Amino acid sequence: MKRNFKLVLLYDGTRYHGWERKQNLDTIQGRLENVFSRMTGEPVEVIGCGRTDAGVHARGMVANVQLNTQLTEAELLRAANQHLPEDIALREVREASPRFHARYRAAGKTYRYTCYYGDEKPVFDRKYVTVLEELPDLEKMRRAAELLTGQHDFRSFCGNPKMKKSTVRTVDQIQIVKKGPYLTITVHGDGFLQHMVRILVGTLLEVGYGRREAESMTALLEARSRREAGPTAPAQGLCLMSVDY
Amino acid sequence: MKRNFKLVLLYDGTRYHGWERKQNLDTIQGRLENVFSRMTGEPVEVIGCGRTDAGVHARGMVANVQLNTQLTEAELLRAANQHLPEDIALREVREASPRFHARYRAAGKTYRYTCYYGDEKPVFDRKYVTVLEELPDLEKMRRAAELLTGQHDFRSFCGNPKMKKSTVRTVDQIQIVKKGPYLTITVHGDGFLQHMVRILVGTLLEVGYGRREAESMTALLEARSRREAGPTAPAQGLCLMSVDY
Repeated sequence: MKRNFKLVLLYDGTRYHGWERKQNLDTIQGRLENVFSRMTGEPVEVIGCGRTDAGVHARGMVANVQLNTQLTEAELLRAANQHLPEDIALREVREASPRFHARYRAAGKTYRYTCYYGDEKPVFDRKYVTVLEELPDLEKMRRAAELLTGQHDFRSFCGNPKMKKSTVRTVDQIQIVKKGPYLTITVHGDGFLQHMVRILVGTLLEVGYGRREAESMTALLEARSRREAGPTAPAQGLCLMSVDY
Repeated sequence: MKRNFKLVLLYDGTRYHGWERKQNLDTIQGRLENVFSRMTGEPVEVIGCGRTDAGVHARGMVANVQLNTQLTEAELLRAANQHLPEDIALREVREASPRFHARYRAAGKTYRYTCYYGDEKPVFDRKYVTVLEELPDLEKMRRAAELLTGQHDFRSFCGNPKMKKSTVRTVDQIQIVKKGPYLTITVHGDGFLQHMVRILVGTLLEVGYGRREAESMTALLEARSRREAGPTAPAQGLCLMSVDY
């Protein structure tokens, strides 16, 4: 009898081609499936709560996996961590109901984007931040963020031009905090389209730099056109913090 | 007329073969000299306050360099940082007296060694910590540290068996602090022998694990033999924090 396990994991996405398994490319899902397959001696599918892009990090990614194993949660955790490379780690393994599905059951996600603006080069966290050349106006960014909060059609913020399904999502919080040289943009919502957080960040930064008006966000949402939004902020500043169920 | 500049710099030592310039190897000193040579069009020698081993990091390394330049301190800082790779940065450039010599004038140094003991793998700072498999007894380590503090012949803690000069040094502080999963050992002294901090840490950890007595430190110093001390702790946990002048 296979048992279903909920996994919470963290990873440094720098050297991976994203979450999703891809032939001949090094991915997080691929690494996890290899480890669990070796442990159980049979093919294993790990189901993620969603996909992270190449170079994006996670501190609270959630997945589930059906395993033929007699091991306890703690034993699975330790064995998997020993076999995983040092830039991927399981934080938690919990046996879940057979119906638990990491993607279908995900009710909300928190992403954090970290920018750096300071005199010093961020030598020790250079892979986890995006360096800003100028300091954006936080109040303008917060006004724009407020207009983007709520239930909207986020097609203007969708990186997939062929997206056929609904692009309506609810973003209930966009928090912009400056602490020392770090500027973090923390976004919570019920789900996110491809590149959505990075396009939100790229657009908010343009507002902060005075290159577009905070008040233009309403028209931008209505445009439903990716070309109207700002650039996709670099992957390395983004981190999936947690997933709600 | 050449001007003498004092430099304060930080680097992630992970991918370098230490501070010291070596033919055909990537080193911090080599990188700095290349950058300043390109900027001035002539050979340049950068004088470090000392050498750091391969894989050791720095947050407050000090060096000096004689340059034929009209640039201001701020211009030099910016230009050098632009040319240096992202894992090496100048934090400060100050014109100094022509007699300032980063090595001869160094009066004291602070090194910090960071260990990690926790349930989670340290995914995001894995290159800056040494993972411990068991939690050492801090009180025992502190008793041993106290016996090592002061002016002593540290030959037992010297990694260079051919060291001909005096191996007497003064270590005036060894501070052992546990904060969350991090255990830091901060050492201040007037100077350090090759591998000295790492051998001190390796020996203190053995005391913490109960494999040798704290009280044995006095005899260990008297032995004046590297073989009597503990192992050299891994380079990646070590960071040069500051240098006193």
